[in-house]
Amino acid sequence: MKLKGFQKLTLVDEALQTWFTALQVGKPKVVTVPLGEALGRILAEDFVANESLPRFDKSAMDGYAVKAADLAGASQSKPVVLKLTQADQVEAKQAKQIWTGHPIPKGADAVVMLENTQKHGDDLEVWGQLAPWTNISKVGEDIKQGDLLVKAGTRLNPYSMGLAAALGHTTLKVAAKPKITIIATGNEITEVGTQRASNQIYDSNKTMVAAMCHELGAETTDLGIAKDDVDEIAKKIKDALKTHDAVITTGGTSVGGFDLVPDAVNKLGKPGVIVHGVALRPAMPTAVATLEGKPVLILSGNPVAAVIGFEVFGRPLVCMMLGMPKTEPRPIVTAKLAHRVTSALGRKTYVRVRVVNKNGELVAEPVSAKGSGSISTMTMSNGYLIVTENREGILEGETVTIQMFGTVEEA
Amino acid sequence: MKLKGFQKLTLVDEALQTWFTALQVGKPKVVTVPLGEALGRILAEDFVANESLPRFDKSAMDGYAVKAADLAGASQSKPVVLKLTQADQVEAKQAKQIWTGHPIPKGADAVVMLENTQKHGDDLEVWGQLAPWTNISKVGEDIKQGDLLVKAGTRLNPYSMGLAAALGHTTLKVAAKPKITIIATGNEITEVGTQRASNQIYDSNKTMVAAMCHELGAETTDLGIAKDDVDEIAKKIKDALKTHDAVITTGGTSVGGFDLVPDAVNKLGKPGVIVHGVALRPAMPTAVATLEGKPVLILSGNPVAAVIGFEVFGRPLVCMMLGMPKTEPRPIVTAKLAHRVTSALGRKTYVRVRVVNKNGELVAEPVSAKGSGSISTMTMSNGYLIVTENREGILEGETVTIQMFGTVEEA
Repeated sequence: MKLKGFQKLTLVDEALQTWFTALQVGKPKVVTVPLGEALGRILAEDFVANESLPRFDKSAMDGYAVKAADLAGASQSKPVVLKLTQADQVEAKQAKQIWTGHPIPKGADAVVMLENTQKHGDDLEVWGQLAPWTNISKVGEDIKQGDLLVKAGTRLNPYSMGLAAALGHTTLKVAAKPKITIIATGNEITEVGTQRASNQIYDSNKTMVAAMCHELGAETTDLGIAKDDVDEIAKKIKDALKTHDAVITTGGTSVGGFDLVPDAVNKLGKPGVIVHGVALRPAMPTAVATLEGKPVLILSGNPVAAVIGFEVFGRPLVCMMLGMPKTEPRPIVTAKLAHRVTSALGRKTYVRVRVVNKNGELVAEPVSAKGSGSISTMTMSNGYLIVTENREGILEGETVTIQMFGTVEEA
Repeated sequence: MKLKGFQKLTLVDEALQTWFTALQVGKPKVVTVPLGEALGRILAEDFVANESLPRFDKSAMDGYAVKAADLAGASQSKPVVLKLTQADQVEAKQAKQIWTGHPIPKGADAVVMLENTQKHGDDLEVWGQLAPWTNISKVGEDIKQGDLLVKAGTRLNPYSMGLAAALGHTTLKVAAKPKITIIATGNEITEVGTQRASNQIYDSNKTMVAAMCHELGAETTDLGIAKDDVDEIAKKIKDALKTHDAVITTGGTSVGGFDLVPDAVNKLGKPGVIVHGVALRPAMPTAVATLEGKPVLILSGNPVAAVIGFEVFGRPLVCMMLGMPKTEPRPIVTAKLAHRVTSALGRKTYVRVRVVNKNGELVAEPVSAKGSGSISTMTMSNGYLIVTENREGILEGETVTIQMFGTVEEA
């Protein structure tokens, strides 16, 4: 990739901050979805307990509800004998059978475990005394009405959905899915499934960018491929902005020394391109822009650079549009670096690695390929080793932190 | 939870093995889905490269395609001068402009970078010599026709989808979603959104179990709530088996000393219940069964025990039904245990923990609650500390491995 054409490379963090300041992304629209469809959606409002759980004093054991005072002095050698009752209320010297989770009948203030009793007809021998409220889960013991249970901006998992069900919610308020348009550019690419010329390749960038958006919870529209023509590109972006919350393009960022997409964006309005050329490897030709207050992310046409450009700029953008308080972290592991990796001082470098478990030790193997643009380097790897700007490579054997996008494999 | 009623507890690994041996789950059905809908699906057949990539020799740089032999002896002080051509073929002493990713014209066997040249009208000064094939990505350099790219049983991510696109695939063959019926049982529960009696609580188990199935890629049908009645439960299970691949029930595994669901299953056929009572905390009353060759997973009615029973038995089952070679691992982190946890020797114990990052150190805080059945212990935690059968608790400060179901939080 050539540096020529970029007077200056902007540091990643600076580029992100400048872009997000210019954008001022607001709170997402709120939509109400049936509880059963809330998995993976982002909670739009703090979820506060509308009632206490348990909602009634309930038994924590299978056994008998009793008055604790009646058991004073009871022991194995000197059991207390109570009368079994079927009534709603437990009176003095009475006991009522009860199962785990069931409400404590009126009058009772303790539950004696089955194991500590012996039934003889209507009589119940009890072999021990109990402090009041033993084996009872009291109202509000798990959750008190008004408790903040799940914060706005949280991705809903099965357990928060279960808690919502337990509290009687049939719907949840979640962030609307951001609508993102994806446009590929380039004379050399053609749509998968169509006829290709002998010098053309199939577009893979739209497929990947769309899937990365879907993973986070955004909706995408595929606006097809624009030729290497500023006007055609500009027209597609303009159309997209009418009905979508963001535009992501691939290609045309430094094609043969021309900046077709940045030029197209700048023709459409102000401020247009905010940063073009990032101190990031790969993905240096990434540009970020704002049009009509909406974000435009201009990714490289090189598939791996497009993926990493999205990872660095698209992922934080989508998380913000979803109302998440910060970019959703990928799972991390620490591993031993299997081979030295090199990087340029002043550039943040994303090294694709394959983390494997070798007899209990995690080892990160850099996945190299002559063509760094090859998507196969992504499918052969399961994580990123991010080399920061202040380092010139990392030595073999160093302990490194890996951001995982796949699962650790057995060696 | 009472032990009474279980003559013997089966070890988790033994229970799983016995069940899976009895089941003999076959290969999943294969369905063809559009590429754009393949995200997160499980690849059903090995994905083998149908052609090589690059499919033509292509330039790895912006520059000029040349014959390497023409540059012999070239240096900054003694540049070689070539004639620029627009023709399809590069002849001796000619150069043709080329951009990254474009096909190498016939006759050329190297690309000289723009930076090492100077254009003067139709003449190109070149300041250095090159070995043949410099800056050229040769056919098949990334991928060779016949290469195994993604193994059957792999969950598809954006990058494998991109690779499929690059190779011209508009569809992919994936495992059909297993169809799982979920049935809740219990007189004490009622459907969310319906009227509840003063001694009833809303069912949360079906919501959670369905969402856990969906997370893995199974389809679910909600068959509602059966009363604590063996015949009613048996009828629902029988109906479910007609049209579904598996049945999961919650509740009725040790209700007041009665094993309603196991009894119902055993009424329906052989072998019926294979294991009932597992050396697992929580989730001891879990049972696993086989009817008509299909799996029946009988979970506790206690919400947390149902979640952990699914984690231990349901997750491996669904992964197997999807054709995955092994149970999909959760991300793991190592952390320092903030407080001592206790467990019983001989029981595998799932301790819910909240892993937080305290100034760069990961700390796992056990999430305890008086009511261990409270779903809030799941929503307050982000991972499981699994204490194996051979240990009696773990001491404060020990380094432990946590299986994460959420993201690490900042302290």
